[in-house]
Amino acid sequence: MVDIATRVYDHNWKIDPIVRSLIDTDFYKLLMCQSVFRNKRDTRVEFSLINRSTHVPLAHLIDEGELREQLDHIRSLSLNRGESTWLRGNTFYGKRQMFRSDFMEWFENLRLPPYHLERVGDQYELTFEGSWPEVMMWEIPALAVLMELRGRAVLRGMGKFELQVLYARAMTRIWEKIEELRQLDGLRLADFGTRRRHSFLWQDWCVQAMIEGLGGNFVGTSNCRIAMKRDIEAIGTNAHELPMVYAALAEDDEALRKAPYDVLADWQVEHDGNLRIILPDTYGTQGFLDSAPDWLAGWTGIRIDSGDPAKGAEIAINWWRSRGEDPREKMVIFSDGLDTPKIIELHQQFKDRVKLSFGWGTLLTNDFRGFVPDDALAPFSLVCKAVSAGGRPTVKLSDNPNKAMGPAKEVERYKRVFEVGDQTRQEVVV
Amino acid sequence: MVDIATRVYDHNWKIDPIVRSLIDTDFYKLLMCQSVFRNKRDTRVEFSLINRSTHVPLAHLIDEGELREQLDHIRSLSLNRGESTWLRGNTFYGKRQMFRSDFMEWFENLRLPPYHLERVGDQYELTFEGSWPEVMMWEIPALAVLMELRGRAVLRGMGKFELQVLYARAMTRIWEKIEELRQLDGLRLADFGTRRRHSFLWQDWCVQAMIEGLGGNFVGTSNCRIAMKRDIEAIGTNAHELPMVYAALAEDDEALRKAPYDVLADWQVEHDGNLRIILPDTYGTQGFLDSAPDWLAGWTGIRIDSGDPAKGAEIAINWWRSRGEDPREKMVIFSDGLDTPKIIELHQQFKDRVKLSFGWGTLLTNDFRGFVPDDALAPFSLVCKAVSAGGRPTVKLSDNPNKAMGPAKEVERYKRVFEVGDQTRQEVVV
Repeated sequence: MVDIATRVYDHNWKIDPIVRSLIDTDFYKLLMCQSVFRNKRDTRVEFSLINRSTHVPLAHLIDEGELREQLDHIRSLSLNRGESTWLRGNTFYGKRQMFRSDFMEWFENLRLPPYHLERVGDQYELTFEGSWPEVMMWEIPALAVLMELRGRAVLRGMGKFELQVLYARAMTRIWEKIEELRQLDGLRLADFGTRRRHSFLWQDWCVQAMIEGLGGNFVGTSNCRIAMKRDIEAIGTNAHELPMVYAALAEDDEALRKAPYDVLADWQVEHDGNLRIILPDTYGTQGFLDSAPDWLAGWTGIRIDSGDPAKGAEIAINWWRSRGEDPREKMVIFSDGLDTPKIIELHQQFKDRVKLSFGWGTLLTNDFRGFVPDDALAPFSLVCKAVSAGGRPTVKLSDNPNKAMGPAKEVERYKRVFEVGDQTRQEVVV
Repeated sequence: MVDIATRVYDHNWKIDPIVRSLIDTDFYKLLMCQSVFRNKRDTRVEFSLINRSTHVPLAHLIDEGELREQLDHIRSLSLNRGESTWLRGNTFYGKRQMFRSDFMEWFENLRLPPYHLERVGDQYELTFEGSWPEVMMWEIPALAVLMELRGRAVLRGMGKFELQVLYARAMTRIWEKIEELRQLDGLRLADFGTRRRHSFLWQDWCVQAMIEGLGGNFVGTSNCRIAMKRDIEAIGTNAHELPMVYAALAEDDEALRKAPYDVLADWQVEHDGNLRIILPDTYGTQGFLDSAPDWLAGWTGIRIDSGDPAKGAEIAINWWRSRGEDPREKMVIFSDGLDTPKIIELHQQFKDRVKLSFGWGTLLTNDFRGFVPDDALAPFSLVCKAVSAGGRPTVKLSDNPNKAMGPAKEVERYKRVFEVGDQTRQEVVV
């Protein structure tokens, strides 16, 4: 029987919206947003899309009208009652009322601010300006929209069975990865793949496959909407945008040197336990840890998000030892460009030396490599970053100079202030 | 929106019927049935299930109650109006009114006769007795039911995502085969996979994939129900049961020697063109052709269904030449245990020498090899054959002694009458 009502209702959709909820975003954006709302609410920032994969000509692939429709649709979204109830009532990281009432009231009234879109050559310039807590909420949906529109452009030319086989291949690939991962004793793995996912439905499928395939070894997803829908843990702590904006706001070199620690000082006012995770690489991991105040060694763990991951973990282990901490009590979260072989390798290498966890992103939710001609569905490296704050440019150095950003002169200044010398370049895949 | 009515209606199904239509069967059964109805209508026959793959303990795998429910359901089926209209009105092999009115009236009133089911050790003894045109219609549904029940028994223990990935793998495999086959210039390929299919839905999927992937190089399906549903050609001519029963009915050695040619003499009264296809291997291809009357060399082509296929084709080519026929005007149909590499090899070898066609069976519609532990979904060699006619046992020699059947003494007699010497054994996969 055809459900006529459903069919007629479906006619009413003008577009097929890619992002349908304000909490179809990473959990750490909400944690950071609350922190920013409390501490730097009026800071003016600019976020900008940056396509590191310049060989992908986004403006040729994606129709500007369609892109505007999707972005406009996101601007029409607001938190619905069920989402609000979930954020207010759910337990996150073992804590009730993670989100304070004043923040929730603000969030319930939030509509995302305007965007600026311009075609420049074969790329789009897409920027967002305004107060930090509002603008920052654009990052994940903007990325997800661009990734999915590019995918749709490729899929449009395919037949029904070609499409079915495409997804059959992708499912088979993910399941084979899961079958490998289920061999690992004591694995702890979360989905971090929202921003560069193939599509919402595909990410949701991947999460369900992980639930069935990995059971308790799958610890949750960074995507709030999916965490709510599938009744699993929402996962995430904080990101580079906090030290980048704090650093840009610093009035002089001395304040700049202090900025990354100020971020964490503000953070620990609100969070404890597994939310006290250091992200040390914004201006070089080694220097950050060497100069860190002693209280930071008491934090629960560290997230390794650039550079050689094993090397990053060894630096952290040595640092904890040098501060009299037992690394076996500490958590190390790997989250940079992971795929199965790397996860297995790192798991074997570190499982008995620290508490291990993995945040698996793009190659979980968007591994369509090799499936279509010219590899036109392969994921690529798209980011959306704070590029200025309080009228000054932001800078990121990272442990991988291929991930660095900011004006050359400012980069030099930051390198001097943070005593960052030569770094090893690593190819950025995703 | 949930369609409540559909859901409630679905509650009413006591079983999930495997065969839901009397024309969910091979087209050649209907052609043969009409021929039998005209020429040997009152012949008493017995058909029996034969599991050549004795390592597959069907009675352990399949619940007897479930099997009876499925067989009983088939006995409840009759031709519906749409099916009858299609058989009466459609063009088959370029001919209108392929099925005569008297036959259609009989078919419209047909219900399949009773079955006899008994468990013997770890196998089922399943037999059908009665008049030939009725009993012969059991062959395909009986096989399809047993194959699918065995599959269901294995699938029952699998999780939702495991199942999805299983089908994803199977789809990927078929599509890869199709992608290889589409490279072949002038390929003509039909689906012959009803009897040993994984399931009806899976066969239907495979057919749709072939339509999309191979376009005009996919010439049709042997399955009438799917041919009707998908509006494509129904394909098939005749099978071993005709010479086997005619031979069993022969009163003496002289009549026996003539029997296989009598079958074709009866056949050509009704059929011409691409339906005049010789199936020469029932009692040895070489001997059959050597002793054939000259009029048979005027037939359109030959179907190679046992033995080394290339050798069989060479024998036919030489025979046509010896009878003054041009092999390039003749059709050779390969239909025994085909899979992609063999199809490609035979296509390259014969495409410029004869008109080529392929009937692809089990490894199209049931290639689940290697997907589950113990290869419990791999297809196996199950047949349902006429074992006696007019009170006398039937005999098949084939070009592969592993496919031979009949009482040893009768086999010896047939070998003597048809002058069959030593034969080469070939493994029967499916």
